[in-house]
Amino acid sequence: MIKDFTAQGSSARYFPANSWYCAGWSHELTEAPLGRTLLGRYIVLFRDRAGRAAALDGRCPHRFAPLGQGSVVGDALACPYHGLQFAGDGQCIFNPHGEGKIPSGLQVRSYPLLERNGVLWLWGGEPERADPAMLPDDDFLVDPAFSSRTGYLKVNAHYQLPIDNLLDLTHGIFLHSRSLLGTGNEKSAAQLAEAASNTRHQVRTVGDVVHSIHHFPPGPATGLRRRLVPSEIVCTQSDMVWYPASNLILHSDAWPGTDVGVGPPALRLPSAHYITPESEGTSHYFVAIARNVNIDDAAVDDHMIDLVLKAFVEEDEPMIHDCQGLMGTTDLMALRPAILETDRAAILARRITARMIRDEARD
Amino acid sequence: MIKDFTAQGSSARYFPANSWYCAGWSHELTEAPLGRTLLGRYIVLFRDRAGRAAALDGRCPHRFAPLGQGSVVGDALACPYHGLQFAGDGQCIFNPHGEGKIPSGLQVRSYPLLERNGVLWLWGGEPERADPAMLPDDDFLVDPAFSSRTGYLKVNAHYQLPIDNLLDLTHGIFLHSRSLLGTGNEKSAAQLAEAASNTRHQVRTVGDVVHSIHHFPPGPATGLRRRLVPSEIVCTQSDMVWYPASNLILHSDAWPGTDVGVGPPALRLPSAHYITPESEGTSHYFVAIARNVNIDDAAVDDHMIDLVLKAFVEEDEPMIHDCQGLMGTTDLMALRPAILETDRAAILARRITARMIRDEARD
Amino acid sequence: MIKDFTAQGSSARYFPANSWYCAGWSHELTEAPLGRTLLGRYIVLFRDRAGRAAALDGRCPHRFAPLGQGSVVGDALACPYHGLQFAGDGQCIFNPHGEGKIPSGLQVRSYPLLERNGVLWLWGGEPERADPAMLPDDDFLVDPAFSSRTGYLKVNAHYQLPIDNLLDLTHGIFLHSRSLLGTGNEKSAAQLAEAASNTRHQVRTVGDVVHSIHHFPPGPATGLRRRLVPSEIVCTQSDMVWYPASNLILHSDAWPGTDVGVGPPALRLPSAHYITPESEGTSHYFVAIARNVNIDDAAVDDHMIDLVLKAFVEEDEPMIHDCQGLMGTTDLMALRPAILETDRAAILARRITARMIRDEARD
Repeated sequence: MIKDFTAQGSSARYFPANSWYCAGWSHELTEAPLGRTLLGRYIVLFRDRAGRAAALDGRCPHRFAPLGQGSVVGDALACPYHGLQFAGDGQCIFNPHGEGKIPSGLQVRSYPLLERNGVLWLWGGEPERADPAMLPDDDFLVDPAFSSRTGYLKVNAHYQLPIDNLLDLTHGIFLHSRSLLGTGNEKSAAQLAEAASNTRHQVRTVGDVVHSIHHFPPGPATGLRRRLVPSEIVCTQSDMVWYPASNLILHSDAWPGTDVGVGPPALRLPSAHYITPESEGTSHYFVAIARNVNIDDAAVDDHMIDLVLKAFVEEDEPMIHDCQGLMGTTDLMALRPAILETDRAAILARRITARMIRDEARD
Repeated sequence: MIKDFTAQGSSARYFPANSWYCAGWSHELTEAPLGRTLLGRYIVLFRDRAGRAAALDGRCPHRFAPLGQGSVVGDALACPYHGLQFAGDGQCIFNPHGEGKIPSGLQVRSYPLLERNGVLWLWGGEPERADPAMLPDDDFLVDPAFSSRTGYLKVNAHYQLPIDNLLDLTHGIFLHSRSLLGTGNEKSAAQLAEAASNTRHQVRTVGDVVHSIHHFPPGPATGLRRRLVPSEIVCTQSDMVWYPASNLILHSDAWPGTDVGVGPPALRLPSAHYITPESEGTSHYFVAIARNVNIDDAAVDDHMIDLVLKAFVEEDEPMIHDCQGLMGTTDLMALRPAILETDRAAILARRITARMIRDEARD
Repeated sequence: MIKDFTAQGSSARYFPANSWYCAGWSHELTEAPLGRTLLGRYIVLFRDRAGRAAALDGRCPHRFAPLGQGSVVGDALACPYHGLQFAGDGQCIFNPHGEGKIPSGLQVRSYPLLERNGVLWLWGGEPERADPAMLPDDDFLVDPAFSSRTGYLKVNAHYQLPIDNLLDLTHGIFLHSRSLLGTGNEKSAAQLAEAASNTRHQVRTVGDVVHSIHHFPPGPATGLRRRLVPSEIVCTQSDMVWYPASNLILHSDAWPGTDVGVGPPALRLPSAHYITPESEGTSHYFVAIARNVNIDDAAVDDHMIDLVLKAFVEEDEPMIHDCQGLMGTTDLMALRPAILETDRAAILARRITARMIRDEARD
C-alpha cells in the first residue's frame, strides 16, 4: 500500500516550479518503475529498453491507479489495474481490452528528466526553460580522487526548514554537541557558547547561488576528522553552497594545526544535500558524502555516511519536525521570527525562493 | 475503544437512503448488542427475547454513549454509561435514577431491519418505502444443493470503488494474474493482453438491475476450478448482477472443454458481494461464496472463502485504496476519468445511483 | 519527538483563561525543563538555581524550537537548537553567536506560576487577577494524618467530559460495576437499577463552588473499603467539590454499619482531580488520593492509586472518548442532551464555566 502520496493538482505555490529537483539516485531506478511523490504530485519514473529514464504523472487517467506499481513492457509502462500502456512521452499507446480502441487524447503529463553523476533530476516547470547549467556542481560524486556514498532520509517538515538548518551550521554546536562534534566529553553550556562566539560566518552570493561560509576555531579533531587527519589539533572551514531552489553542496575542508589555508586541505569532505518537497509539510532528503583520504577503505565509507544519517535522523529531523509542529504553519516568515546574524544566508535563500515563486505566479 | 465510528448527522448525500444495505450476517448478532457504523451513522443492532433483531441509532441521547457497548435487558437495550433503557422501536422505557422520571420524547431513531437467508438488511430511508422485493436473490445461501461460507472485509475506500471493481472483472487478468487466475507460471504482459482481448463483455439491464457478463476464452482450469472441474480445459462465464445501490451477486459458471452452454455447467460458484458505506471514504464488504460440487468437503469450504478473501485483501483493496488516495476525492466522475468499453456496466450503475440520490434530494 | 503539542495562538475560547490550572506535580519538575501543552499552548516549566519554578511559552521566538528540550543554565533556560537563553520572566538574556547582540524585544510570554502542597499551579489569564484564594483546598496532600499518592492520566476528550463524569458518580453503578464497586459477583441489570434508585443526590453551591453529594445505601463493603473498614456492611457518602474551572476534590467517607454521620467516619478517602485542557479535544488528568487509615502501609498506597488509575484508564476514559467521538463536537450543550436529575451538578458547573468564558470574551 502506498502511504505517502498526496492528491494531484494542488494549487499550492510553496516551491518554484522552474527548478531542478532531485527525483532519486540513478541506482534506485532499475527494471521496475519507481513511484514517488515529488512536488506534491505522485510521479512515476521508469527506464525504456535503452535505459533512458522518463518521468510521468503517476496516476492512470482511467481509474487513477498508481502506475508506480505497474510494469515496464518494452518501452512502455503498463498500468497494474487494467493494463493500459503509456510511452515515455506520456501518450497511451496500448489498450488490451476488446477492440483495443484508445480514447483520443489519453495521456499523462511527462516531465523533463536528466541523469547526471548518478542523480535523477526532474524539472518541475516549463520544459523549454530546463537548463542543465542550473544544476549544482557535484562532480566529486564521480571523481576518482574521491570515494563517495549516498543515502536517503525522509523529513517530516517543509523543505525550507532543513535548508535553513544546513545554511546555519552553528546549530551543530548545540544540537550535535554530543554526536557529530562530540569528543566524547559532554561540553558545558558555557563551553558551547564560547565555541559559537569564536566561529566566523561569512555570506557571499554569485548570482542566485548563496555561499554560507564558516571558519571554525582550531580545536581537537572530532568525529571523522579525528580518524582521517594526522593531527591532534585541526582547523576547519565549511562552504555550504545553495543552488535554487533546494540543492546544496557542502565543501568541508580541514587543515592540521591552527592555520587555515596554508596549502591544500589535508582532508576534503564534500557532500551533496538535495532536498525535494514531497508535500507542503514533508520532504525527501537525498544525501551523498565523499572524501579524498583513505579512499579505498570501505569501512570508512560506511562510517562516513552512517555518521551523517544518524545525526540527521536522531537530532536534526526531530528538531525540525518539532519546530514545524510549534509553528503550526509551513510559512516561517509569516510568524515574524527573530533574525540573528547567523541567519543571513538562510534569509537570503528564502528571499530568492520567494521571488522565484512570485515571478511564476505573475507569469 | 471504538475506532471507526464517525459523527452523526452528516448531511453528505453520497448514497441513496431508500435502499437495502447489508448490516451484517445473522450469526454475528447474538445475545450482546452489535455496534457498527453504517451509512455514516453509528448504529446498534440487538435482539429481543424472541430473537427479533432491531436497529437503532447507537448514541444515547443523554450523554451520547455508544449503546453498542451496553447490554440487553429483557426486550430492551441498556446504556453502558448511566443505564437508560431503550426498546426496539427506539423509545426510552426505563430510567434507573432517583424517581425514574423519563424526560418526555426521549428516544433514538429506529430503522427497518429485515432478516433473510442469514443476512441482516437495514433500510436507510423512509420506512414506508422499504420493499423486500428489492433485495438481491441470494437463495443459494440456504439452498441444500450448495455449500456456502461467509466472510467480512473492510475497504478503505468509497463504496462505489469496490462496486466498479466487481462490475469490470477484466481487472483480474492484470491484478490477479498471480493469485486467483494464476496457473503458477507468471504470464508475460503480452499474454495478459491477449487474454484480455479474447474476453467478450456484455451488459444487460432489467429495470435498475444491471448484469455485467463476461465470456472468458477456453483455457487451462485455474484456481478453484482446477480442483473441482474434471477437465484440463474449461470455459467460464460470469454474470455479475448489481442491485441498487450496492449489492451484487456473481454467478460464475464453468463447463469442461471448450463449449459454453452445452448442458448445465459442471461447476457453479455463486457469490454475494454486499458493500455497505461505512463513511464517505470507507466501506464494509460482506462476502459469501457457495458451490454445487463436492459440497460435503469442509476443507474446500475453507479454501473457497480464503481464496476470495486473500485476493481481495492483498490485491483489490490496496489497489482501490490507492486509487482513492490518488483521486483525492470520492467523486470519481468529477475527475472525468477515461472511459473504456469495459466500464459500461460500472458507469450504468453509477448513473442509476446518481439518479436515486438526485431524486431523494429533490423530495 | 514531541507528539502532542499543538500550534500556538489558537483563538478558541473553550476554557476561561482567568483560572488556576494544574501544570503538574512538583516532583515532576527537577533539574531538566518540562515541556507540556496546557490550554492549547506548548508551555515550558523550569526551576532557577533557587528552585523557584517559572512557566514560559515553550517555543523559541527565533526558529520556534521547543524550549522544553533545552537545558537550564544558571537561572536561565537555553534553547536546544541555537542556544539562546531566556530568564524566568521570559526575556532573552544571552545570544551565544558572533557579537552576541540580542534583537530588541526578544522574549517569550511568562505565566504566573504558584507551587503549593506539591502542586504546580499555572494561571492562564491576566497576572493581576491571579488569586491563591481560588485554589482548591487540598491540604490533605500534606497532612501527616493522611498518606497520599499522586498519578497522571491522559484523557482523549474535552476537559468538561471528565468533569461531568466526576460530578455524577452514579455512572459508577453501571460503568464500574465489575471493578471499583465490584464485589466479585457481577450484578444483574435489575440489581444495578435498584442500587441507582436507592442513591440520594444533593447539590449545594458556595459562591461558584459546586458540591455534588451522594448518599449511597448501606451495603457490603467493596473495593478499598472492604480492606480498611472493620465491618461487613458500610455506609458511604461522597462530596465531590468543583472549583472553577476544572479542579475537583472528592471527600469520600465511610461508616461501619448502616448509620451515616454517627461519629466521625471510620475511613476518609479524600482525592484531588485536577483536569487541565491540553487541546480542545484532549486533557491532562492529575489525580491524587489519600486515606486516614493504615497510613504506614506502602502496599495499600500502591493499591489505592492503582485502583483509581485502572478504573479510569480501562472504563471511564474509553467511555468519555467514545462519547466525544459520537458527539462529533466538543460542545455538549449544542447537541441538546437529555438532562436527568443526576446531571444537576454538572449542568451547574457548565453554566458557571460558560459565564466565565462569556465574561472574558466581553472584556
